[in-house]
Order: sequence, then C-alpha cells, then structure tokens
Amino acid sequence: MIIMKSEATREEIANVVKEIKKYGLKADVSQGEFRTVIGLIGDERNIEFSHFATLPGVKEAMPVETPYKLISKEYSKRFDEEGEIRQIKVGNITIGGDDLIFIAGPCTIENKPQLFRIAKEVKKAGAHILRGGIFKPRSSVHSFQGLGANGREEAEEALSWLHEAGRKFEMPVVTEVRGETQIDLVAEYADIMQIGARNMYNQDLLANVARKGKPILFKRHFGSGVDEFLSFAEYLAAEGNKDIILCERGILPVGKGKNYTRYTFDLAAIPAIQKETYLPILADPSHATGRRDLIFNMSCAAIAAGASGLMIETHYNPSEALVDAMQMITPEELKEVINACQRIHKLITR
Amino acid sequence: MIIMKSEATREEIANVVKEIKKYGLKADVSQGEFRTVIGLIGDERNIEFSHFATLPGVKEAMPVETPYKLISKEYSKRFDEEGEIRQIKVGNITIGGDDLIFIAGPCTIENKPQLFRIAKEVKKAGAHILRGGIFKPRSSVHSFQGLGANGREEAEEALSWLHEAGRKFEMPVVTEVRGETQIDLVAEYADIMQIGARNMYNQDLLANVARKGKPILFKRHFGSGVDEFLSFAEYLAAEGNKDIILCERGILPVGKGKNYTRYTFDLAAIPAIQKETYLPILADPSHATGRRDLIFNMSCAAIAAGASGLMIETHYNPSEALVDAMQMITPEELKEVINACQRIHKLITR
Amino acid sequence: MIIMKSEATREEIANVVKEIKKYGLKADVSQGEFRTVIGLIGDERNIEFSHFATLPGVKEAMPVETPYKLISKEYSKRFDEEGEIRQIKVGNITIGGDDLIFIAGPCTIENKPQLFRIAKEVKKAGAHILRGGIFKPRSSVHSFQGLGANGREEAEEALSWLHEAGRKFEMPVVTEVRGETQIDLVAEYADIMQIGARNMYNQDLLANVARKGKPILFKRHFGSGVDEFLSFAEYLAAEGNKDIILCERGILPVGKGKNYTRYTFDLAAIPAIQKETYLPILADPSHATGRRDLIFNMSCAAIAAGASGLMIETHYNPSEALVDAMQMITPEELKEVINACQRIHKLITR
Amino acid sequence: MIIMKSEATREEIANVVKEIKKYGLKADVSQGEFRTVIGLIGDERNIEFSHFATLPGVKEAMPVETPYKLISKEYSKRFDEEGEIRQIKVGNITIGGDDLIFIAGPCTIENKPQLFRIAKEVKKAGAHILRGGIFKPRSSVHSFQGLGANGREEAEEALSWLHEAGRKFEMPVVTEVRGETQIDLVAEYADIMQIGARNMYNQDLLANVARKGKPILFKRHFGSGVDEFLSFAEYLAAEGNKDIILCERGILPVGKGKNYTRYTFDLAAIPAIQKETYLPILADPSHATGRRDLIFNMSCAAIAAGASGLMIETHYNPSEALVDAMQMITPEELKEVINACQRIHKLITR
Repeated sequence: MIIMKSEATREEIANVVKEIKKYGLKADVSQGEFRTVIGLIGDERNIEFSHFATLPGVKEAMPVETPYKLISKEYSKRFDEEGEIRQIKVGNITIGGDDLIFIAGPCTIENKPQLFRIAKEVKKAGAHILRGGIFKPRSSVHSFQGLGANGREEAEEALSWLHEAGRKFEMPVVTEVRGETQIDLVAEYADIMQIGARNMYNQDLLANVARKGKPILFKRHFGSGVDEFLSFAEYLAAEGNKDIILCERGILPVGKGKNYTRYTFDLAAIPAIQKETYLPILADPSHATGRRDLIFNMSCAAIAAGASGLMIETHYNPSEALVDAMQMITPEELKEVINACQRIHKLITR
Repeated sequence: MIIMKSEATREEIANVVKEIKKYGLKADVSQGEFRTVIGLIGDERNIEFSHFATLPGVKEAMPVETPYKLISKEYSKRFDEEGEIRQIKVGNITIGGDDLIFIAGPCTIENKPQLFRIAKEVKKAGAHILRGGIFKPRSSVHSFQGLGANGREEAEEALSWLHEAGRKFEMPVVTEVRGETQIDLVAEYADIMQIGARNMYNQDLLANVARKGKPILFKRHFGSGVDEFLSFAEYLAAEGNKDIILCERGILPVGKGKNYTRYTFDLAAIPAIQKETYLPILADPSHATGRRDLIFNMSCAAIAAGASGLMIETHYNPSEALVDAMQMITPEELKEVINACQRIHKLITR
Repeated sequence: MIIMKSEATREEIANVVKEIKKYGLKADVSQGEFRTVIGLIGDERNIEFSHFATLPGVKEAMPVETPYKLISKEYSKRFDEEGEIRQIKVGNITIGGDDLIFIAGPCTIENKPQLFRIAKEVKKAGAHILRGGIFKPRSSVHSFQGLGANGREEAEEALSWLHEAGRKFEMPVVTEVRGETQIDLVAEYADIMQIGARNMYNQDLLANVARKGKPILFKRHFGSGVDEFLSFAEYLAAEGNKDIILCERGILPVGKGKNYTRYTFDLAAIPAIQKETYLPILADPSHATGRRDLIFNMSCAAIAAGASGLMIETHYNPSEALVDAMQMITPEELKEVINACQRIHKLITR
Repeated sequence: MIIMKSEATREEIANVVKEIKKYGLKADVSQGEFRTVIGLIGDERNIEFSHFATLPGVKEAMPVETPYKLISKEYSKRFDEEGEIRQIKVGNITIGGDDLIFIAGPCTIENKPQLFRIAKEVKKAGAHILRGGIFKPRSSVHSFQGLGANGREEAEEALSWLHEAGRKFEMPVVTEVRGETQIDLVAEYADIMQIGARNMYNQDLLANVARKGKPILFKRHFGSGVDEFLSFAEYLAAEGNKDIILCERGILPVGKGKNYTRYTFDLAAIPAIQKETYLPILADPSHATGRRDLIFNMSCAAIAAGASGLMIETHYNPSEALVDAMQMITPEELKEVINACQRIHKLITR
C-alpha cells in the first residue's frame, strides 16, 4: 500500500501507478479527503517497498501482507489437513500433540558422569527429551565455552555421550549447533538440532541446518519482534523442512531502573504466534528469567499461555555447575514443575 | 559502593574516604589486584552517588541498597506479622488473601444503562470489584476522553452512577483519578482510587492521592523497570498509606519487526515483585495485550505466575464500545476466565 | 484503513462498509489478489479504529492520518506564513530564529548566592536563558526534591530568586512545573514554563499549563515514540497555545549488556521532528547522557542534527551540587560548547 | 563483588569466603550497617558469578571489572604507545588517523556497470573506501539476497568486479562476509572484511574472520548494549587481530507510538566507546536512519560526536536500486556531506 503526501500532484500519482504496473501488478487509487492511498493488486512478495517510498509525492509505502507464507496458517491450508498445530515426531515423542513435551538437562555438558546422572534423574522426573550444551555461545571470550571449544575430538566425544545417554534413558536428544562447521557433526549425534537465539538472524546457518532434514528447535532472538521471528522461521521452511519447533526464551528488558529478571519473558507472544502459524511453540523459562526461584511459576504461566512444552535447565547440584548455575533447578523441582504444568494443560484445553 | 579507576592515586582514594566521612558514614577500602573498591558503612539513603562519581579517580559510584524500604520485605519486618502478602480490605472483599480478586467492568462509562447492565452481568460472572473509566487518558486530544471531560457536573454524575452500581450489585468500585483537581471528587465516590500507568511518575498526584487514606490501585508505567515501579510505590507509602495494590499492565514492546500485542505483558515481574514486597500485585491482561482473543490464556498465565487477581475490561457487546473495543471480553467469557483462574490458583498454591 | 482477513466473506465486507457509513465517511473497497483492503474517505479523526478491528472478518484497522494536526506542517499552512520553524519570542530572545539559543543554569536551585553566581557566569559564557529547578522529579522519595518540597513559602522564595536573577543578568527564566497546584505560582515568576519528561503524558497538567498562555518548554518522555510526543504537544496546541518549544532529552536505553550513557540521545529524532512540525526543537545533552565528559561532543552533535538550541546544566563546581553533579559542566566549558556549536550551526545552515 | 542478604548468617558469609578461595582469589569482607559486601581480590576473569549467586545468603554477585581487556584503554597500555586511537592502515588509507575516512558505494552490487559508475562517482566526491554488498542479510527469504545468492561462481564474479573497481579507482574495498563458508572467498578479494550487525553475536564467524588477519569492519548489533559490543570485539582481538574498525549503525527503536527512523542512531555511544577502547569507530547513518533526507544532518552529527569516519550508501539513481533505495544518497549529495563533515571535524579537533 502506498500513501501519498497531501500535496502530491496528479503527475506524481500517475507515476506511482506506472511504477506499480512495471512489477506486473495493478493499482487501486483511492482518493481520500486529505490524501490519496494506492493499493497494490497482485503478488506483493517481490516488491521492494523502499523503492516506492523514494518516488516523488510518496509519504509511506508498506506491505499489507505478512512476509512469512509457508509457515502461515492463513496462507497455507496445511493446518486444515493436520489440525491447529503441526505434530512433529522424534523417536516415539510427538511435539505439538495432545501431551506437553518437557526438554531437560544441564546447561552445559561438563563430563560423562555429570551428564548420565542428570539424564537418569530428569527421565525419572518425567522429561521427554534430553538437552546438553556442547558449543556454548557466551558473552565473554574469557568464559568457559563448552567442551566443543576444545577441538573436534572432544566435541565429538561429548556429542557421543549425549547420544549414548539419550539411548540409554530413552529420550531423543537436542543440542545447539552454533556455527556452520559444526553442522555435520551435530547432525550425526543429535535427534533435534537447536539454533540458539543469537543465531536467529544467521541465515546461512539456518539454510544449512534445515537442509539436514532433521527437526529444528528454533529460538527467538532477544532483539526480535514476533513477525521477524516468523520471517526467519520461513528461511528454514524455504529449504523444504517444516519440522520446526519454535521457542520463546525472553526478549530484551526495557524500562527505567532495573528489572529483576535476565530477559523479559514474552508469554503473550505464545498464543499470538500460535494464531499465526501451525508450528508448535515451546518456552524456555530458564534463560528467560535467569532465576531458579521463578521457574515454577513461570513454567506454569507458559503452559497456561498455551505453550506445547518447556525446555528447562536441570542439574542435581546447580551451584556446582560451570555455566548458568543461577537458573538451573534440581530434578526434584523439575518433577513438581512437570506435574503442575500437566494439570494446568489439562485444565485449559479441557 | 565506589569503584576507583585503575590509575587512581592514593590521594584520590583518600579524598573519596574524606568525602564519605562528611556524610557521617564510614569507608571500607578494599584494594584489589587491579583496582580499589570503597564500601560505605552506614545509612546510604541520603547519599547522592552522582556526587561521588565526579570526584577525581572515581570510575563508578552506585548504591548497594534498594531505594524502597517502607514497602520492602527485607527492610520492614511487617510481613512477619502479616504473612507474605499484605491483606487489603475494601468493603467485605480482601485483596491479597487466599482468594483471587477479579475487577471487571467497561473500559469507559458511557451512560447509566450501559454501566448497570455490565455491573449486573460481571457480578453474576463472579467479579468482586467494579471498574469504569470516567477520566480517560488518551493518546490523541481528538479522541473521546470519557464523561469526565464534559465538566465537573457530568463527571460527578458518572461517578455517582458508578457508586450506585457498586452498592446495588454489592461490589466496591474503582476508577482512575487522572489529575490532581479530580482527587477530592473521586475520593468521594470510589472505594479504590486508581493511578494509571501514565501517571506512575507523577509524584504530586501520588502524594495527594495517598493522603486520602483510601486503597490505591497503582499501575506500572510502560517505560518503568521493576525497581522504579517499587520506588514510586514508596512515594505512596511515605504518606503513611500502605493500602497499595500494585498492577502489572504491560511494558513497551521491543524488537525488530512487529510484535502482535499492544504491550509486552511482563508476567515474570509478578513473582519477582512479590519476592521484594509484601504489597499484593494484580495483572491487567486487557491493556497488556490489547487483544480479546488472548485474554483467556493470558489471564490464566498471570494467575499461574502468582498474581493475586486480575483486572479485565468487560462489555456485553464489545464492538459497540467507544473506547478500546478491541480488548474487551463479554461477561460470559469473563465467567470462563474466572473459573479457569480459580482452578489454576488452587493448583499452584495447593 | 481496514485490512480484511483472506477468508472474509462478502457479508463481512459489506458489514464493515455499513459501519464506516455510520460515521459519515465513505468506503473505498479494494479487492486484492489475496485479501480486501477498505479505505476510509472523509475525516478519520473521530473514528475509533479499535471498534473496526473487532468486526468479523477484519484483520487489522489503522489510521492513515497522523494524530497531530494543529502542529503539523502538512495539515496547517501556518509554516508557509512563518517559514520552516515558528519563531517564539520571550523577552528579547527568539527561539526558532536564525540564532541558536542556549539555556543554562544549575540542575537545582540550592540557595540565592549559588543561583546568582551561576547566573552571572553562564550569562558571561553566552547563555540566553536561565534555568534552575525548584520542583524536582526524583526517582526516590528519600532524595532531595528541591526547595519546592519545603512548602509554598520556600518555593515562592526560590522562584523569586530565579526571577530576580533573570532580570539582573538579562535572561528570561525557565523552571519546571511538576504538579497542577504549582501552575499559578510558577506562571507568576517564570517566563517559560517547563513540562518535564515524566509529565509528558499528564494531560491535565498540559491543558492547564497551556491555558496560562506562556511559552512552554515541552520535554519528550523517555518511553515515548516521536509520534506520541507530537500527539501530546497537540494537547497544548488544542488549548490555543502554540508557543511550544519541544525538547529531546534521551529515551530508554535498550540492548543486552550495559550502555554507558544514562539514556539514549535520539538525535535523529530532531531532523525527523522538524520535518513534521514547525515547532522549534531543542536538545538536552545533560539529561540524555548523564555524563559531563560527553557534553561537548553531544552538544555539537545535537546542533549538527539541526536543533535550534540546547539546554545544558551548569555549575561553577559540579561536584558540590546536591543533584545530578555527574552531568553538569562549568561555565568555562559552557563557553567552549557555545562557541563550537555556533560555528557548526553557521556551517550547516550556510 | 558479592552482596549478601541482610539476614545472611555468619556461616553463610564464611561459606562464600571459602568458595572465593577455591578460585585462588582473596575475599575482602565489608560489614555494612544493613548488609555485608564481599569483594574479590585477584583475577576475576574466570569466575562464574552466577555460581556465587546461588550460594545461600547471597543477594547479588557481579563482576567489577569490564569483560573486555585486550581492546580496553584501561587494561592495555597500548594506547600510550600509539595515541588515543589505533591507526589502521589499508592500502594508503589510514583509519583512526587525523583525517576522516568515508566509505561509500551501493547497498548491493547489481551488475558491473552499476558498480563502476558508482565507484567512479564516489571517488570523485571524495570517498576513500568502496563498499558494495554481495551477500545480503535480508529479513525475508522472499527478497533479493544479493548476487552472492546465485552460487559460488556469480559470487566470485561480483567480488572480482569489486576488487577491480577498487584498483581502478584507487580505493580499498570492503564487503560483508555473512557466513563461514564465504570467508576464504571474501578474503581473497576484499581489503576489509565486514561483519554485519546481525552477525555480531556469531562467535564462530568472528573467530574465523579474525584469523584471516585482514582489517575487520565490525558493526554493532541493533540489540546490543555498548559493553556487549566491546565484549564481542574482544572475540576478534583474542585471535590476535586488533585491526578492528567498530561501527555504530543504529539500535532498536523503543517508545510508545511510532519513531520516524528505522533504528535509533546511538551517537552518544561513539564518544562513550572511544573513552573505553583505542579501536577507531565509524558511523553508518544510512542504516541507522533509513532515510536519505536525514543523511546530511546525521552525518554531520556523527562526526561532531567524534566518529573517525562514515559509511554511506550511495547510488547515482537511488530509486532504481533493488535494495534499500530509501536510504541511499547521490554522489553529489555525498560530496556535500564529506565537505561539511571535514569542516566540522577540523572545528571540533582544533
């Protein structure tokens, strides 16, 4: 849609119409009391609206359509075939089905016994999928970057532990692939490949991970609005891979003075997103809040908001952990969370 | 606490210590490997830290204590006497007690029959307190500003309807007082005086409303962090009025691209605030999301997060309303919300 | 403009058209390939777009016009009569004219000798208008609130000093009016009445200050976008007072990790605003940055961006000041700032 | 530094001290009136503060030191040897020296004649370095992604044009490397390798680009605070490459209502950053504002703020461009910008 300035001349309006036709679209000119608005009839997708904004007499030029189509409920009729939420199967687990899915495990894999003990305990607590970080994105180059930082061999060893723990305790496993050179390696061992929040905008990584054909856990960047998050999920779908599990994990806090959580957990984005797309969406209260004392409440809240499951960092002794100790809960606490969440889920879905 | 630059000289450190003593405090000098940190021992409250930040050799100067004391759990021992949450009684309703409290009613009072019909229906749906706007804060001077804009007489008439509806349907009533000249009038008719989000920083209004001695519904500004919200609640408490009901109603959205809600509903702020203060906190999903299709989920989520109740805009025919039609639900929908919320509340408090 | 859902039926479209006609406007229906867009022809100003958004089949409803008209260059033809920027005269000073205007003085008036010494020195440094805070908005109720907090008598005394200093050193004076009860008093002594950032949304204060008919220094709220800032300036203009001096003073910082300034100085808003309105706009680098070591650069930058002048907090001995010591510069530094700014202004306006 | 809760016991304090010693540091316990603060003496760098925050009795745990050391003026003594700003030489151009550096060229390279014509014209206008996008990061997968999207051959061809144009018109060239697989190719043809804003957090890309040993143009992410921006520049420096040219290009807009620029141009970050690090910093008014009508003012403002140069998108006929037409200026306008900036630079550096 193109909004003309009030002082735009007839020639300027005619010129915009001519330009629209160049793109193979039709123009609908609507003469208002104060200004003229020109609608575009046809496929807007390949239009560069910034081009129109530079034409003489134009005040504003903007698309009316959303930029994501393949993953959109409105555009695709896909959800008619499959229901409101796409069901993504991994092993014998279904994400987006009737049951909530809980992903649990340590923030970072430190050694084999640590991982196996946690795997065993989260399985017992009711978790469905095992997580564990190997390639860690950290704010400071001087912090521990995960075992993946110690070279390919150690990375592969850690990945093999994760895989083994998953098989042993009967849980599919997920871990983050942080850079393009790690894709093949991670794809070999992980059942679900995670693209972390900091990489949401990394379209080369997105395309290459998607091509592996495995389910992807795709986290929202802390600086991304909802429509950008979905636009980048579209990069994955454009490679023919629609096994995309979205994840809300907190956005940038804003406000004078301090907030008391690490990020702002944008829970209203969950039902808002679920109205736009058939892709299932999970929530990650650990990273969103950064506070273990808020995990119980915020897990329940995320499920009440409509999430299809949760990703929760868990450790038998959080204060011993090398990374993100502050946000991990124990397997006993996890059990309580899962129990409360399942009851809330039943209650709101009836 | 004062952090010195690494190149600070002995004289500069000695000078800071001297300045601290002027305020009647003691200094604790801690010589680190790279820099010196000076702690303040005594009551920091009257210290202007920006003064210290200008002294030669100083890198940073900041308080260690929170700026709110009267409403703080840690400072006051008040919560020991009364439990975790202060119980505020209005008529035969208790806010902050075992039961959730639901405030409902139209965004704006348009006429007497509209108000009475809504009052009757929200009461039947299970609401405890009746709301209705008379002095409306609007972004455009050209929009409808509520009946309060038509002069004192009409304002008083609308207030008397609200009062009458409250008595008739046995609900205490709450309405916003937007400016200082409205305080006496509103205090005459309202059981709870609301200070809206846009006025959170209006300390003159705060002090004068607090002096009326009535319970206050105090909403967080959309540009305020949690600690600033509590610091301004302290302005109310400083007048000797601790019947303060906090309310989270959404903060500024942030992120590239669009978000699909009017504000970001900061639900994690609810348990975070409840750990800091004994004041009860409610949530307002109507303003936070601006979308009636999200009210059910986000109401449930707010209660799961730990809110003591909700404020929900309700209208028998939302699309007829003059203001904020988009965010109002019907009394029938309200009933479902209340029912689900009460069951979630029971579940998480056990 | 109303955007329909792709699945909207003919009946739903017809219904929207019918509703538009109720408001006395005409509808222009534009049938796109994928969805229908309905334009409104007539005066949109009294339309509640949220009403339309609730109608069945509607995806989005939004105004095409800006909400500020009286102060808009495009709507009013006022600027044709007066040039690009409205010239506001106060005493023998013109704001918005060919010369830059510098407002200087202490953050807070502490006593008469302090004020007079600063007034004398800033005048000598080249300042045109004297500032000094009496009613201070502070984040903590436990901080010094200015002499205005000590009762009407002390407030009036401080105001009379300001007035006297202005006369003695031949500078119009400006001070903030923080609450409605201070309006008459401040209007008696101040040549320009300042509405502070925290009060930008306080429409009762705005209307009542505007009615005094004096020039108003109107600061942008740190949580306000540009169009909301202008919409609230419209509240002033709606009272018939167009002697409005806008002021950019920093918005909320955003971003993971720390920023090193108190607010984000939104300098691009200055030329952007000047393209929309004929009202002159100043900048306040003191509050925006909170750092005296950045004042020189950021003053020059604000003038290069197109500001009509600056407001700079000045003190002969910043580290002695009770409030905001960290952001004040000395009169000697002010002189350098003024000198550099005037040369840059000449250079960019040629 | 570790801040204890007011109710912390002696045992809890002793336990924190014990933990600190485990890391090989000393603890300095400062007993305040209300609470205890424990300072860490030694190298904080390897401490996980989140670990301490989980210990019983701890209220808050945070580093006192900045996370960037190698690029810090305070830590390194480097700037003593080289002056305030590191001089980075590329061909016969010096960035960070006495003269401003202007990088200009099209947003996106579309074909050889377009590039050569622009190169010739920007050189004549006074530009020093030629830019041109080949691998474009775009928000929508359905938009034009640059010639780099058409396979390795076309990418290499476009790179060779850029290289050739640089040699012909005697300007070093810069282009963005968007993904890890493009590094070798880009390194072969570009004199400076650009890491775009969306990739600021992509530490794998950072490390691998830095290892090429070429100068890097490193842009701030729109969701990053200043200290995070510098912490990620540290990832580059940690690979032994300190030829890092920082670039401010706008951060996320924040505020109720609309802003009238694409991003918020955070100009005060420029002098704030230059006080922290010796790395030179440029500004990009094209991306920051997204509006060609603001480029002149905001370029002047960026230089007044202290930038060492600018990156400006230029096109002989902006409205013809396929990408970002709205923000490009013509070579004639560029000449005016360069001229005004150089005069302002001279004026503020004297």
